[in-house]
Amino acid sequence: MSLHKYTYETLKDFTREVFLRMGSSEDDAELAADVLLGADLRGVDSHGVARLIGYVRLWEAGRVNPTPKVKIVHETPSTATVDGDSGLGLVVAPKAMRIAMEKSENVGSGWVSVKNSNHYGIAGHHAMMALERDMIGFSMTNASPLVAPTFSTERMLGTNPIAMAVPAGEQPPFVADFSTTTAANGKLEILQRKNEPAPDGWIQDKAGNVENNANGLKSGGALLPLGGDRVRSSHKGYCLGSMVDILSAVLSGANYGPWVPPFVSFLPLAENMPGEGIGHFLGAMRVDAFRPVDEFKQNMDNWIGRFRACETVEGQEKVIIPGDPEREIAGIRKTEGIPLLKPVVDDLREVASKFDLVFGEAELA
Amino acid sequence: MSLHKYTYETLKDFTREVFLRMGSSEDDAELAADVLLGADLRGVDSHGVARLIGYVRLWEAGRVNPTPKVKIVHETPSTATVDGDSGLGLVVAPKAMRIAMEKSENVGSGWVSVKNSNHYGIAGHHAMMALERDMIGFSMTNASPLVAPTFSTERMLGTNPIAMAVPAGEQPPFVADFSTTTAANGKLEILQRKNEPAPDGWIQDKAGNVENNANGLKSGGALLPLGGDRVRSSHKGYCLGSMVDILSAVLSGANYGPWVPPFVSFLPLAENMPGEGIGHFLGAMRVDAFRPVDEFKQNMDNWIGRFRACETVEGQEKVIIPGDPEREIAGIRKTEGIPLLKPVVDDLREVASKFDLVFGEAELA
Repeated sequence: MSLHKYTYETLKDFTREVFLRMGSSEDDAELAADVLLGADLRGVDSHGVARLIGYVRLWEAGRVNPTPKVKIVHETPSTATVDGDSGLGLVVAPKAMRIAMEKSENVGSGWVSVKNSNHYGIAGHHAMMALERDMIGFSMTNASPLVAPTFSTERMLGTNPIAMAVPAGEQPPFVADFSTTTAANGKLEILQRKNEPAPDGWIQDKAGNVENNANGLKSGGALLPLGGDRVRSSHKGYCLGSMVDILSAVLSGANYGPWVPPFVSFLPLAENMPGEGIGHFLGAMRVDAFRPVDEFKQNMDNWIGRFRACETVEGQEKVIIPGDPEREIAGIRKTEGIPLLKPVVDDLREVASKFDLVFGEAELA
Repeated sequence: MSLHKYTYETLKDFTREVFLRMGSSEDDAELAADVLLGADLRGVDSHGVARLIGYVRLWEAGRVNPTPKVKIVHETPSTATVDGDSGLGLVVAPKAMRIAMEKSENVGSGWVSVKNSNHYGIAGHHAMMALERDMIGFSMTNASPLVAPTFSTERMLGTNPIAMAVPAGEQPPFVADFSTTTAANGKLEILQRKNEPAPDGWIQDKAGNVENNANGLKSGGALLPLGGDRVRSSHKGYCLGSMVDILSAVLSGANYGPWVPPFVSFLPLAENMPGEGIGHFLGAMRVDAFRPVDEFKQNMDNWIGRFRACETVEGQEKVIIPGDPEREIAGIRKTEGIPLLKPVVDDLREVASKFDLVFGEAELA
């Protein structure tokens, strides 16, 4: 499939302009564009501008408030519950993360559970906000139910990602950012485009049997929790997804489990929803709330260096440090541009036409 | 293999007495016996009295201080770094958890990173201490390196468990407690005793290939991170194990990665150890630091009830709520006794003889 390359700046300007035309303030539009383009830059294409049309459709369906008043509804010195006022998660989450960091500055750590929000983009982006302040950042969110707990045929959980960002010294930071399923939608979509089968352990059919059709979710199947099956401990992935759901939504008063609102606007909301919107959980801990920053960074450098130096399995060049692949891609894309698939370009043209904007031709070879 | 049943009280009295004879104070001996027997009661046999001889041997080797002065070496209102003074993790961890809960009482949440400790028993026990105070409890620890990161042939991480305990209302609490590997040692030992092969995804051989010999670790193999292989996202299990290692040890100043001291006393310590002892990370968050406790518990009850009611895969009776199986076993073992395997009874007799104690015959049919 042919690729169309655009510069980071072009895509960000366009995205910011779209949010402005939806009615967002200058600050909010900048914040949202920054989160979305951060995903494209780091190679997480499933969470970048490819999703812009989804956010626009949610707004058209009246499910996103473009001018949210994000506010603290309950707090202690180290915790807060934040009401996202139905805003874009792309705006609500970084604001909640700022509150977590402020509390961390004051009392060592800060933890914010968020309700009444929407899809917040790439989890790692919010965790990484902590790095420049020498804090360890945490970010997680619940999401539309697509995942079957071990032994279940029902979709009860989202891909519920967890991210943790840790500053280092000479070494680049450690950034883990992963869904709590064997594979998330982005990887299935790649197989669907290539017309390739899904490996065992990725999805099950509607009866709960192994499903190798990469389109299996469309016929009632479900994504599987990390582990894949009971023999390989899918109950641990189910635990992880549940922990994210509880911290993000039961703790804040958002919707949880099968009641989480869908990202796609054409799906109806569940009946008898027990909470408000979707939920996130964000955290920050000052490194120097535990030990001097230079000692910590020396040890982190040593940790990373030692893991980098691991003897490898034949045919593998190196052991990967979490965050390395995304940072390497970002380095390339900053200079060589961000490649978009034709269907994504078409979607962006459709978005442009809704707002009397122009989304131009690819600028880079 | 024949089973020998003992009452909880008999095993706890014996265990407490052993710690007393090692030189522990009354309080510490009680604390340690409580943690160890909590594992036996909940059916986690690999972490209960079966390990008592291991702790005794560590003490004989001079690697455990029976009279530790556990102290805070650095703190903020919501965080602390604790030095375990080479004490039993069974004593150090609950004391660190008390500090976390105290801080949570004061400022909403409390987070304690621990260095200079030893094996702390069952992770869930410490997390569950939070329940009676209407807090969410967290517990994790690093451990002897037995796990190969994705693409590595070297053992770099421990089974590094994560536990989270969440109070509910009418429903019993949600208690997740799991190693970040596909399977931990306890499950391999069961296969070894039965002379059965290990499933794909549990262990690799010394070259990093699939290993189905359940004794594969003895010939240079390694446990695999949750996920099992790259196709099924073992890099996520590797991320999780790394996160536990960093929070437990890089943050506290304990040993991390391949330098974590072994639990078994006959293995030598690594050279150039970068820290002190092994590390834990304990946390507590007051529910009412986020929302009123009764609202939260109502929602937790609803969450648990809905997941319990899931449609199941054919042949499966129900979807399991984390914590259910262990609680059910505890109910049975409280009345019917705790079954021990013959080799465990033999080990306990050996321990008894070291301290001029008697470990009697099985009391229950």
